[in-house]
Amino acid sequence: MSELLNGRVPVPRDRENDYTREAEQRRADFIKERTGVELQHVTSYSFDPSVLTGNVEQFLGVAQVPIGLAGPLLVNGEHARGEFYVPLATAEGTLVASYNRGMRLLYECGGVTTTILDDRMQRAPAFLFPSAREARDFGGWLRDNFDAIKEAAEATTRSGKLIEIEQYSASRMLYTRFDYTTGDAAGQNLTGKATQAACKWIVDNYPGIEHYFLESNFATDKKSSQVNMLHTRGKRVVAEAVITNDVIQRVMRANTELMFRARQVSNLGGFMSGVNNNGAHSANGITAIFIATGQDAANVAESSAAFVHVELRPNGDYYYSVTIPSLIVATYGGGTGLATQRECLEMLGCYGAGKVAKFAEIVAATVLCGELSLGSAIVAEEWVEAHDLYGRNRP
Amino acid sequence: MSELLNGRVPVPRDRENDYTREAEQRRADFIKERTGVELQHVTSYSFDPSVLTGNVEQFLGVAQVPIGLAGPLLVNGEHARGEFYVPLATAEGTLVASYNRGMRLLYECGGVTTTILDDRMQRAPAFLFPSAREARDFGGWLRDNFDAIKEAAEATTRSGKLIEIEQYSASRMLYTRFDYTTGDAAGQNLTGKATQAACKWIVDNYPGIEHYFLESNFATDKKSSQVNMLHTRGKRVVAEAVITNDVIQRVMRANTELMFRARQVSNLGGFMSGVNNNGAHSANGITAIFIATGQDAANVAESSAAFVHVELRPNGDYYYSVTIPSLIVATYGGGTGLATQRECLEMLGCYGAGKVAKFAEIVAATVLCGELSLGSAIVAEEWVEAHDLYGRNRP
Amino acid sequence: MSELLNGRVPVPRDRENDYTREAEQRRADFIKERTGVELQHVTSYSFDPSVLTGNVEQFLGVAQVPIGLAGPLLVNGEHARGEFYVPLATAEGTLVASYNRGMRLLYECGGVTTTILDDRMQRAPAFLFPSAREARDFGGWLRDNFDAIKEAAEATTRSGKLIEIEQYSASRMLYTRFDYTTGDAAGQNLTGKATQAACKWIVDNYPGIEHYFLESNFATDKKSSQVNMLHTRGKRVVAEAVITNDVIQRVMRANTELMFRARQVSNLGGFMSGVNNNGAHSANGITAIFIATGQDAANVAESSAAFVHVELRPNGDYYYSVTIPSLIVATYGGGTGLATQRECLEMLGCYGAGKVAKFAEIVAATVLCGELSLGSAIVAEEWVEAHDLYGRNRP
Amino acid sequence: MSELLNGRVPVPRDRENDYTREAEQRRADFIKERTGVELQHVTSYSFDPSVLTGNVEQFLGVAQVPIGLAGPLLVNGEHARGEFYVPLATAEGTLVASYNRGMRLLYECGGVTTTILDDRMQRAPAFLFPSAREARDFGGWLRDNFDAIKEAAEATTRSGKLIEIEQYSASRMLYTRFDYTTGDAAGQNLTGKATQAACKWIVDNYPGIEHYFLESNFATDKKSSQVNMLHTRGKRVVAEAVITNDVIQRVMRANTELMFRARQVSNLGGFMSGVNNNGAHSANGITAIFIATGQDAANVAESSAAFVHVELRPNGDYYYSVTIPSLIVATYGGGTGLATQRECLEMLGCYGAGKVAKFAEIVAATVLCGELSLGSAIVAEEWVEAHDLYGRNRP
Repeated sequence: MSELLNGRVPVPRDRENDYTREAEQRRADFIKERTGVELQHVTSYSFDPSVLTGNVEQFLGVAQVPIGLAGPLLVNGEHARGEFYVPLATAEGTLVASYNRGMRLLYECGGVTTTILDDRMQRAPAFLFPSAREARDFGGWLRDNFDAIKEAAEATTRSGKLIEIEQYSASRMLYTRFDYTTGDAAGQNLTGKATQAACKWIVDNYPGIEHYFLESNFATDKKSSQVNMLHTRGKRVVAEAVITNDVIQRVMRANTELMFRARQVSNLGGFMSGVNNNGAHSANGITAIFIATGQDAANVAESSAAFVHVELRPNGDYYYSVTIPSLIVATYGGGTGLATQRECLEMLGCYGAGKVAKFAEIVAATVLCGELSLGSAIVAEEWVEAHDLYGRNRP
Repeated sequence: MSELLNGRVPVPRDRENDYTREAEQRRADFIKERTGVELQHVTSYSFDPSVLTGNVEQFLGVAQVPIGLAGPLLVNGEHARGEFYVPLATAEGTLVASYNRGMRLLYECGGVTTTILDDRMQRAPAFLFPSAREARDFGGWLRDNFDAIKEAAEATTRSGKLIEIEQYSASRMLYTRFDYTTGDAAGQNLTGKATQAACKWIVDNYPGIEHYFLESNFATDKKSSQVNMLHTRGKRVVAEAVITNDVIQRVMRANTELMFRARQVSNLGGFMSGVNNNGAHSANGITAIFIATGQDAANVAESSAAFVHVELRPNGDYYYSVTIPSLIVATYGGGTGLATQRECLEMLGCYGAGKVAKFAEIVAATVLCGELSLGSAIVAEEWVEAHDLYGRNRP
Repeated sequence: MSELLNGRVPVPRDRENDYTREAEQRRADFIKERTGVELQHVTSYSFDPSVLTGNVEQFLGVAQVPIGLAGPLLVNGEHARGEFYVPLATAEGTLVASYNRGMRLLYECGGVTTTILDDRMQRAPAFLFPSAREARDFGGWLRDNFDAIKEAAEATTRSGKLIEIEQYSASRMLYTRFDYTTGDAAGQNLTGKATQAACKWIVDNYPGIEHYFLESNFATDKKSSQVNMLHTRGKRVVAEAVITNDVIQRVMRANTELMFRARQVSNLGGFMSGVNNNGAHSANGITAIFIATGQDAANVAESSAAFVHVELRPNGDYYYSVTIPSLIVATYGGGTGLATQRECLEMLGCYGAGKVAKFAEIVAATVLCGELSLGSAIVAEEWVEAHDLYGRNRP
Repeated sequence: MSELLNGRVPVPRDRENDYTREAEQRRADFIKERTGVELQHVTSYSFDPSVLTGNVEQFLGVAQVPIGLAGPLLVNGEHARGEFYVPLATAEGTLVASYNRGMRLLYECGGVTTTILDDRMQRAPAFLFPSAREARDFGGWLRDNFDAIKEAAEATTRSGKLIEIEQYSASRMLYTRFDYTTGDAAGQNLTGKATQAACKWIVDNYPGIEHYFLESNFATDKKSSQVNMLHTRGKRVVAEAVITNDVIQRVMRANTELMFRARQVSNLGGFMSGVNNNGAHSANGITAIFIATGQDAANVAESSAAFVHVELRPNGDYYYSVTIPSLIVATYGGGTGLATQRECLEMLGCYGAGKVAKFAEIVAATVLCGELSLGSAIVAEEWVEAHDLYGRNRP
């Protein structure tokens, strides 16, 4: 009614079943009518819209994002072992070529060693009390009642396990981070539901909470933060390799001594600029894999944080490592089961249950290849020229 | 040759013309052979691969990312004026519904006011000198020779204009940020090329530079940083609105007083956690629009930074603003001209030259709607239930 | 010998006993001879230099720092209860007057409530391994062997207790923070000694550590850091009060509504500027008490971090709190036993064993008074005028 | 009157002339009466209290802080040239010995090269407008009217010169930083007065400002911030030296290769922990000089920020630099003219007009010596033992 009064025309929906080609077509017609644009490509998709319940509302069609294939990527992980061909969804010229070149370099050096250091997903309620003293005392109670809270939280989920409740206090608030393992799912939703159940149990059992808020900027979902860089969100994963100077010279036309000097300058630059990543461009590879494989690309916000640490060995060898402290990945749930997304996970042998650690290692290994490729290109001053060659349609 | 020796099997390429269905098919066959996965959906796309030169290498097919349609979004911008239906590419259930709800709320409140505060794109070379003194003196020379440097830089580009060279000194290095306006392109590549030309001119004309590096973590491309939050990368854009308490109560089942209290708690939480965004989840809306419209989603890393500032007025009205300090957008170049991407830009009336400011305003307005929707949902504790309702296939 | 060769003339020392007036006088003569300056005031001190062993080397005399007396400060703490007159050592005009005014304001409002939330002191060794995997595995071993490590650490100290070993991993390193309670001492030295003993035990019992470094920027002694703001260094202490609008108007010629608005603007400013303290000037009061009472004023670096959180109540009351997350204080050891320093601690009833919590509360309460005084003065635009009145000898 | 009613007993003051021994004695008696503590040492000072107008209120006596003498410090500055004996006021055992050892090391290596890169002091008003658009437009007006604003600001001061107005926008606010040079004074007060005058001129000449606040967390006086690390507050000064491996081995019993490795680990640690200083302990030396020479030690909060950058040369030489981005120093005004403080400045040839650059260089050179001394001691694992030897009275 208010719609009619103020002239607002909502997007058409089929209240019975909105996940059909007909409902989609009705919206495409609506767009034609309202904007004059006739959708030809957006409405070209190869799957049945009925699979999209739980993934999108008011479905209109698809974005077709080009995928380039890079590889082989040689990984010496604990979960990912062997060679992989990596689908990268991107429209940025040179990106696939650059990662592919890095993969070649590291293949020649024996591959990338990957290690998952930690794994946890958070929801972060804040509790408000009359004064700081009650907030502090509540912190003690939380520690004493962890088992009961864990039980309340885990009653809501099959795969989530509450492993810790971190506490951060200020003023009359107690900020917490409820940390869970979440199996093969990224877990933002299950942790939300479990934590809400836990909060209800808490409120029922602890008198004196003035208010609580389910989220107060301490999980920093889809945001970069120091707390996540320190304490992990998703997977904390390291990719390492030792590159010999002769391979760098042959494949990259750079040398390790100069790369090391450039790195020192970049490290200080990043410290001064207040960056969340002292490396080169991990977001490029991460985003491209995320889109290809049905990850939530909004998590690039926190997944793009990285710590690069390198060492120049006396013989000219170059130890290079990248630590990704908050890599949010899933091989189950979210967009992972959609048509193209599932195929891309399958190409990597990473679809479904029990595969998320393997997938995280492949992502980290890919990132390392991209770091070395761009890092050496900057040093070799080939970087802009590379863009000229491949990125022909740039303005 | 080394390929043969070490058994590395590279991805097949057609050296003559790799942007054909045949070349793509050869790679799909290769994937079948190497991994056993038969691609059916990835290889379903509605355009001719020849359009992809400059966008991707070793093309294999596409990711089909579902698009939901939200709107109408009512914008009172300087460039975007009126109602828009916004395509959001995502596989995260509830996202479109949540933004749609926020758009309805703000429609009822008279729409979103948007303002672009600044606009600049950087490349950030660092110059190395024998000691700090020479680095400092070079800084003076840079200022004195700005016009000549600008000429050298701009000779490489039609649309890029050098507007400033920022200087940051430490040790024996001078870190710089070359700031450009870049028209309707995002401009990372053109600024790279222009700055390299500028650096060559500089090196030719200033003796005593020991080395220079084209990038040293001061542009922080695809990384979040304080320097970009302070000094803008891409567009610095504000979305503002005043929401009345009765609309919040009716549409959101929340109230402004409680939302304001929650915001204070979130502000302190974010200050303590070291987050780059004291708001709720701007990355969600930004990423979804970015993927739909051919933006570089890797830029979500820096585009996800945001400053939320709110005020509770004596009459219960709620002033809400979000400032996005480093929103990287384009309506020309990159992925904007691809098949589905262009259609989505056209739906917004934002394809091509002269449209980037309008597009930036639409993105910012969309973000504001999402902030209010999630912000009020958290307060209303409906949030997890909303996920239950829509996100049925979550683990 | 090298001294003679290169002409370097070291400061004279008495190898037998350097803590005498004679040794001091020999250095004063040396200064006269080398610089022409005859020290009259520096060499005027009221104690015997023999007390200075363990506090200073190559003693030359004293800095006489003026102390102003502020108060009464009314504290409703758990350890500090009642009225205190606070010695503030400073040469900054208006500082004492400003704190004194804030103390009057809060006296009229019923005093300051103080709460110590946490208490811990760190030393932070980093352990280096061949690769990330060994570093991770070592982390598990550390957890499993906490009791033995604790025993090794505590064997070196009477008052230090190891309460936790935090772990932060990156690359092939495991960074740790050894957290201790340290009684009435600040504890930087005892934690250093205890942690070195612990590290020796660890190295003896865990094969495969490539190297360890006793400190690697994770304790951030005398430096401000996010990790200390999150996890406490020294005391984490809150001071709270509710101020009525009529008292603010009468004493401060400001009003709470305007102060609240100013605070919102300051909060956003601080978030953007990347400050470690969103308040006004806690370092002023902390430094002045530190110098007066023999604290290590270099710890102002981390003790100056603060979180201010305020609320404007519907009746115009103003809830104001300041949380100091890393307040380094002692009532025993260091400079606390020196002549004037001890007297100042005694004035507060805080000298010696069992007094450090009381002292921490007095410091926090003092800080709150200063925040309200300057905060209201800025609002009242009296601030510069106040400096004009008192700070007559400013250039 | 309210004093009487609520029982508050203020500190006695002499309204005619409070800067006398009599007034001080009255307060000492008051302390005796209220706390039972008889002040013997605090009331022992060697100057006439009349000199303290403008430095302290409600004068009670002095803190006698021990001064140790370190040196000779060999400086190759642009303003400080030659050898200096540096007074360090501290009660922390080993501090003077450690700095002295570092000075010896660097003397043997030819001294410390110092360079002042920048010099500016800020006051940072924020201006509030009805919406973001007016705030942005005001920014343009500010740029256009710089000369008139400069004139208004400089009318209030002899030594302050307005050199730039930085702008940072968010929401409906424009945050500014008014940057001044301030001669030999630290300048916080003169910039406050000048900026208030400028703001009055602005408000008189620009209609539409809803409110302005003289300070909003963008100058970050006495607080550490990224904006000051990027843009300088006070002096931005570098100290550099090249140390040979054989001197490190002889003087420090360490070696440069191991120091370099430790530095890499510390750099990453500091990046992760979010520290404002990747070095060792610059606050120690800075605080000790500050207290000795009448600087405002509360400025240690921001002066403790530092960027360390090192290089290991192929021949084993170690290039070491420390950049202090916000060193607040004065040789005129504040506490610099007090009795002992002036003597200490005179010992360095740094008292009064025209000496502040020289003094800043001496401070920076001292810091470098301390960094190398502690840095090498940590590596040599002598560090804790050194504390054992000197710090005998530690608990």
